[in-house]
Amino acid sequence: MTLTTAHTTGTDAGSAPRAVPVDPSSGVLRPLGLDDVTITGGLWARRQHVNGTATLDHVESWLEREGWIRNFDLATSGGLPSGRRGREFADSEVYKYLEALAWEIRRTGDSPWLEERFRSIVDRVAAAQEPDGYLNTRFGRPGQGDRWSDLEWGHELYCLGHLFQAAVARHRTQATADDGLVAVAVRAADLVCDVFGPDGLQRVCGHAEVEVGLAELGRALGNDRYVKQARLFVERHGHQSLADVEWSRGYFQDDVTVVETDALHGHAVRANYLASGAVDVATETGDADLLRSLSDQWRRTIDRRTYVTGGQGSHHQDEAFGQDWELPPDRAYSETCAGIGSVMFSWRLLLAQGGSEYADQIERTLFNVVETSPSDDGRSFYYANTLHQRTPGAEADPETISPRAHSSLRAPWFEVSCCPPNTARTFASLAAYVATSTDHGLQIHQYADASIRTVLGDGQRVAVDVATSWPDDGDVIVTVLEDSADDWTLSLRRPAWATDARVSVHRADGQAARAETVVSAGELRVSRTFRAGDRVVASFGTSPRLTKPDPRVDAVRGCVAVERGPVVHALESTDLRGTALEGATFADLRIDVAEPLVDLAGGVAATLQDRVTGDRAVVALVPYHRWASRGPSEMRVWIPVL
Amino acid sequence: MTLTTAHTTGTDAGSAPRAVPVDPSSGVLRPLGLDDVTITGGLWARRQHVNGTATLDHVESWLEREGWIRNFDLATSGGLPSGRRGREFADSEVYKYLEALAWEIRRTGDSPWLEERFRSIVDRVAAAQEPDGYLNTRFGRPGQGDRWSDLEWGHELYCLGHLFQAAVARHRTQATADDGLVAVAVRAADLVCDVFGPDGLQRVCGHAEVEVGLAELGRALGNDRYVKQARLFVERHGHQSLADVEWSRGYFQDDVTVVETDALHGHAVRANYLASGAVDVATETGDADLLRSLSDQWRRTIDRRTYVTGGQGSHHQDEAFGQDWELPPDRAYSETCAGIGSVMFSWRLLLAQGGSEYADQIERTLFNVVETSPSDDGRSFYYANTLHQRTPGAEADPETISPRAHSSLRAPWFEVSCCPPNTARTFASLAAYVATSTDHGLQIHQYADASIRTVLGDGQRVAVDVATSWPDDGDVIVTVLEDSADDWTLSLRRPAWATDARVSVHRADGQAARAETVVSAGELRVSRTFRAGDRVVASFGTSPRLTKPDPRVDAVRGCVAVERGPVVHALESTDLRGTALEGATFADLRIDVAEPLVDLAGGVAATLQDRVTGDRAVVALVPYHRWASRGPSEMRVWIPVL
Repeated sequence: MTLTTAHTTGTDAGSAPRAVPVDPSSGVLRPLGLDDVTITGGLWARRQHVNGTATLDHVESWLEREGWIRNFDLATSGGLPSGRRGREFADSEVYKYLEALAWEIRRTGDSPWLEERFRSIVDRVAAAQEPDGYLNTRFGRPGQGDRWSDLEWGHELYCLGHLFQAAVARHRTQATADDGLVAVAVRAADLVCDVFGPDGLQRVCGHAEVEVGLAELGRALGNDRYVKQARLFVERHGHQSLADVEWSRGYFQDDVTVVETDALHGHAVRANYLASGAVDVATETGDADLLRSLSDQWRRTIDRRTYVTGGQGSHHQDEAFGQDWELPPDRAYSETCAGIGSVMFSWRLLLAQGGSEYADQIERTLFNVVETSPSDDGRSFYYANTLHQRTPGAEADPETISPRAHSSLRAPWFEVSCCPPNTARTFASLAAYVATSTDHGLQIHQYADASIRTVLGDGQRVAVDVATSWPDDGDVIVTVLEDSADDWTLSLRRPAWATDARVSVHRADGQAARAETVVSAGELRVSRTFRAGDRVVASFGTSPRLTKPDPRVDAVRGCVAVERGPVVHALESTDLRGTALEGATFADLRIDVAEPLVDLAGGVAATLQDRVTGDRAVVALVPYHRWASRGPSEMRVWIPVL
Repeated sequence: MTLTTAHTTGTDAGSAPRAVPVDPSSGVLRPLGLDDVTITGGLWARRQHVNGTATLDHVESWLEREGWIRNFDLATSGGLPSGRRGREFADSEVYKYLEALAWEIRRTGDSPWLEERFRSIVDRVAAAQEPDGYLNTRFGRPGQGDRWSDLEWGHELYCLGHLFQAAVARHRTQATADDGLVAVAVRAADLVCDVFGPDGLQRVCGHAEVEVGLAELGRALGNDRYVKQARLFVERHGHQSLADVEWSRGYFQDDVTVVETDALHGHAVRANYLASGAVDVATETGDADLLRSLSDQWRRTIDRRTYVTGGQGSHHQDEAFGQDWELPPDRAYSETCAGIGSVMFSWRLLLAQGGSEYADQIERTLFNVVETSPSDDGRSFYYANTLHQRTPGAEADPETISPRAHSSLRAPWFEVSCCPPNTARTFASLAAYVATSTDHGLQIHQYADASIRTVLGDGQRVAVDVATSWPDDGDVIVTVLEDSADDWTLSLRRPAWATDARVSVHRADGQAARAETVVSAGELRVSRTFRAGDRVVASFGTSPRLTKPDPRVDAVRGCVAVERGPVVHALESTDLRGTALEGATFADLRIDVAEPLVDLAGGVAATLQDRVTGDRAVVALVPYHRWASRGPSEMRVWIPVL
């Protein structure tokens, strides 16, 4: 495994920062950001629109309503202790919301209203920062715990990690006068380095996040001290600096060092955030052993500890990964934030090493976990994403805060409300996960109507538009908009699920163009001195398919899942209405795998049978990410054959 | 459903109390206690011996070591707040230990040493009682919460319920001068009635237990006020007098009234304790609707929410029942105390209504949950009883207190240590669950070498000895020791699992005796004017059998379990040693159901195949209740066929 390819950029290194959440100084692939890529249509454009016009507003109104922003005002005015609202990590939700706003301001280009909201909250946060840089509304005042006195559960460093990510997003996207957020982050980061540096407190935070935050802040500002501090934190994990807890130190990845870990374990969000920070550290420090270990961990985690949806975390009790093959659909926790963490981890490995398996997993997780969380209107969310709902839940009250883990219906807000702002920042920055570049090539990893304008490493300008109805069909047309002076290579990910993959290249006049075309397991590569009007037409087979589980996954033995392209489908009791199985007992249904699946617009139909009565019907399945959109229902992804 | 048959007793009503944990004033069957029944040999006698000679000592030493008895001393001397040790319910473990000691003192007949320990602890408890009867080391003092201020989680009434059960056990077994425990209980119970009576605080305790405690204290002392208070508590459940919690009010059965409940739900121990108390209340108040509802709940709970072992509770997170058919073996919580609670509930319904299904379930639960918990030496325990262990655990440290729910190996003690003293009181009083009587009959429900000496309702003396190798084989010989003046009926439970059941009656000279014999679905009945030396010989088929799961239980689809008699068997990786499958990956093993099971001494063997390599071997399975006795192992009860 090589850790070469220090990035030079087509635009001068040292020029304006790129609008990306992750910007490694080396790696096989170079990220393209919101300056380079715009999603222009299709499912993801709709989601980005809803996110920008509904979800952000929704999140801010709940942050205000619950008093989590006001906590900063109280801290500033000398109030707080028993007046503080929310859980110990409430500050972090405000920071994630700031990060989402920063991306959205850049994505929409010109939004004085969003800009004003952003600055107003930054002012309130900044006012609460103490002179030495400390910033947390829950610790350090009379009547509160001492600073850093509860690293197991206090989440102080976790909150700062999110502050740093927000500041990085703002630093890389800000078009207007400085609002001071980066300075707030720098003061806090300097304090963290002072307190937890090589000669400081030799401990870590119970919830990883400061690692990615510091690494990226260091990259963004060119401050190596922050990267080194991130490395210290990564390396300190596994040395039992945290107290033991009921679920053991594995819960916060303090049982085994990162490099000696076999597979992600413990709390699934913590594990993914830590692994992401560790990739950042490995990349910046050239630690090939650590990077190799992390990609091995990723492989084993995806193979053995990840749901067909991409979801991670089998346990409700400790929100944790189960053991290998422990993947119960009905008790799937599959927290939305763990899905986002998995995208973060996969994306970093993709940048470092290349490999379609990483982009495949990102696609699977985006379509079947991250997109599953929010409702169509972007104002209610799943925290946990079960793969099997035995009884329809009650209708949710849009005015009521919910416990975190009930999965029967999406809820407007949670006592632990990490997921809504986490989806918001992810959707606002989604264009940054679409494509990458190399010295002589452009790689498209995620398919959506998009426009891509960038400069390759060799200085060549590239402008293409992507047109597709993904995921409804598997045709992708990439139109080149500018002549190029020299050959360059367009790489299109070939998903592992695609039964079939074809590519052709046409000139503006519709004639076949001369191009070097390579079809390999994971990609279609087309090399040519492209001309304006050239079109690369790729087609990936998206016939509906039955997926058998690994026989070692006990919980779904004797079942199949129905997939179509990247979209996992689900059987909902709602869809029994009007069929011969209306009124059937959901638990008595099986699928007849001898009958062919039927490809429908927006879904797939399968032949089901009542095990007891023998009644049969062809029933439509819905994309899993839209289940329960029509009200409470029984639902299952894995459908019994027996 | 009738609620008739007020009990008269052969010994005069009002004479010495019977040594039973449950003594209803009416019902179809009358319990026989430790005065009537002695277990003389076999598995249960061994367990009672280990319980008496090792477990009791072990429990007391940990109660002292952890300071849970000393809490009472501190309360007496005016110490406590931050000096108090243990969880909020630590007092209850001391009471359960006292209950166990009371039964054991009676069981062993004469044990000055146990008697001295009992009295010494009673003195320490009694000294801590406040003048108005209040008794709890966690509430009511400066620096502590107010009395009854945290009914959701404080466990004050729960602790008192266990105090009452201990006092009842003592009252019904005490052969020596009064030690004062009953008086302590009466003072506390009077206070509870004053505070929570018809015009008092209209609330319940978050953990049911005071209901059974009060009902039985009322029965034991003939004090109707306590029974009425138990009824008030039962009837108050389901009226949302407790605050909502993350897992909803169903967690403590405060969402739906008891009579309107469909199936046990929420925390599995709470649910069983409440249901048990509700049967007591229904029985004492003649509430036929309530009793009918409870037996319907029992049926649905056993059919749909109970593991093949008899274990209950599918969720680790809230220690709760899952929904119908939600029975994952690998995440089975199946708490030992929930098994004990299930025995309590089944036993009360058996006394109230008769019915072999209740005794069948008690047998299943005793052999496969309650007996599973303690190690052979009685000094370590399972708190949760998983049905599937994917990775061998680490060797347990006999000196280390454990979190409650790890199932890889039995542990000496837990932070939440309800289970060890709960098994201790159950085993010490086990003889009370063996047999019952009616006016003209004796019913044997559980099979063990035993001597039974009692007087039937009609005044006829009955003396029989039971000889059996149960559960190793299904032969039971009941020898009558005294001539009777008139006909009476011996009923032997016919287990639902018995493929075959035969009975014959012989005179002392070996010749067939004239008797009226009825073989029905649930019992063998023999009526005769018995003579000394008569022998009733019953034989129940115990051939090993493959059990298919209900097809609605998703988590074990495509699997079978191996049972023999009442004993569920388990495949342990330990038993692959020396076979052609030594070194096979446990997750790759399947069972070949076309090959016959082999009946072994102490176990059953089955033909297994490695799904990947095709290797095959005949492998011994062990009784589930002894799994992990030979060190850490992988284990599964449900074995894949696919």
